[in-house]
Amino acid sequence: MQGEPEVVILRLGHRPGRDERMTTHVGLTGRALGADRVILVDTESSKDTIEDITGRFGGPYEVEVVSSHRPVIRDWEGKIVHLTMYGERVQDVEADIRAAHSEDPLLIVVGAEKVPFEVYDAADWNVGVTNQPHSEVAGLAVFLDRLFEGRELDREWVGAKKRVIPQKTGKRVEPVDE
Amino acid sequence: MQGEPEVVILRLGHRPGRDERMTTHVGLTGRALGADRVILVDTESSKDTIEDITGRFGGPYEVEVVSSHRPVIRDWEGKIVHLTMYGERVQDVEADIRAAHSEDPLLIVVGAEKVPFEVYDAADWNVGVTNQPHSEVAGLAVFLDRLFEGRELDREWVGAKKRVIPQKTGKRVEPVDE
Repeated sequence: MQGEPEVVILRLGHRPGRDERMTTHVGLTGRALGADRVILVDTESSKDTIEDITGRFGGPYEVEVVSSHRPVIRDWEGKIVHLTMYGERVQDVEADIRAAHSEDPLLIVVGAEKVPFEVYDAADWNVGVTNQPHSEVAGLAVFLDRLFEGRELDREWVGAKKRVIPQKTGKRVEPVDE
Repeated sequence: MQGEPEVVILRLGHRPGRDERMTTHVGLTGRALGADRVILVDTESSKDTIEDITGRFGGPYEVEVVSSHRPVIRDWEGKIVHLTMYGERVQDVEADIRAAHSEDPLLIVVGAEKVPFEVYDAADWNVGVTNQPHSEVAGLAVFLDRLFEGRELDREWVGAKKRVIPQKTGKRVEPVDE
């Protein structure tokens, strides 16, 4: 978020077709919950959807597509978290990660199909949001909410064309004049 | 969770084919993050996947398939939360919902395609985990983590055949003898 070291999500490559929507949800969750940027491996259609939402509801939020995760991890200047059900318990390591992120950019790696061992090895923390099989989208969401301690819910949006006004019942969407 | 009023997730019907995996992720996220039961509308294959995970990694967690959400909502004895990007901000209403859930069962409705107005109307709270478009899986995950205030991360599992042991690097899975 603005005024903090960058938080970037790296979504590893998924099986063609199968996980496209899940990749889109990873990208949109990152945007909604305080990340600055998402890097996708080989998936132009998710990029278009995420950029379309950013165009309408605001940013800043960047989407980048790369052909391999390797150079991204190798060249990252900052700390790396890999979210995995095999990792250390989020409640045990989140305070250390928050302290590290107060000084350095953070790359959050989100797996898809089988994650190569080099990713576990390159991570400063392998983190499990529970050690149960569930959803990479759910794990990312809880992790971001805990990383930012709820500050992400007050994020302000730049360049939005429209804005949702919270309602007890029903829907209210207003155009934004900037 | 055990020893608390029941928390049940109702996943509304999705477009055939399109959102099957997302529905599975909703169900698995509920299981991992403290819900007791999920009710799916018209989707046997998600049921099978969720029950398979529960069989291997433990419960209690029930999966029910119904042909319509209407009787579930109409006959629910307890409070109802509907997660929607148009709703009140989670940070504004979560304390009230926690207080209500300390006394009564809670039904959490998770939408898919266009949600009928009757659902907004039947809910005691329409709640937005941000008022941004992202992912119903992400919204559910953050909501459950806040509802249970992290207690769900210490949930104990009954009837598990195997268990993941948290690791700094790599994977460790052990058989469970009960």
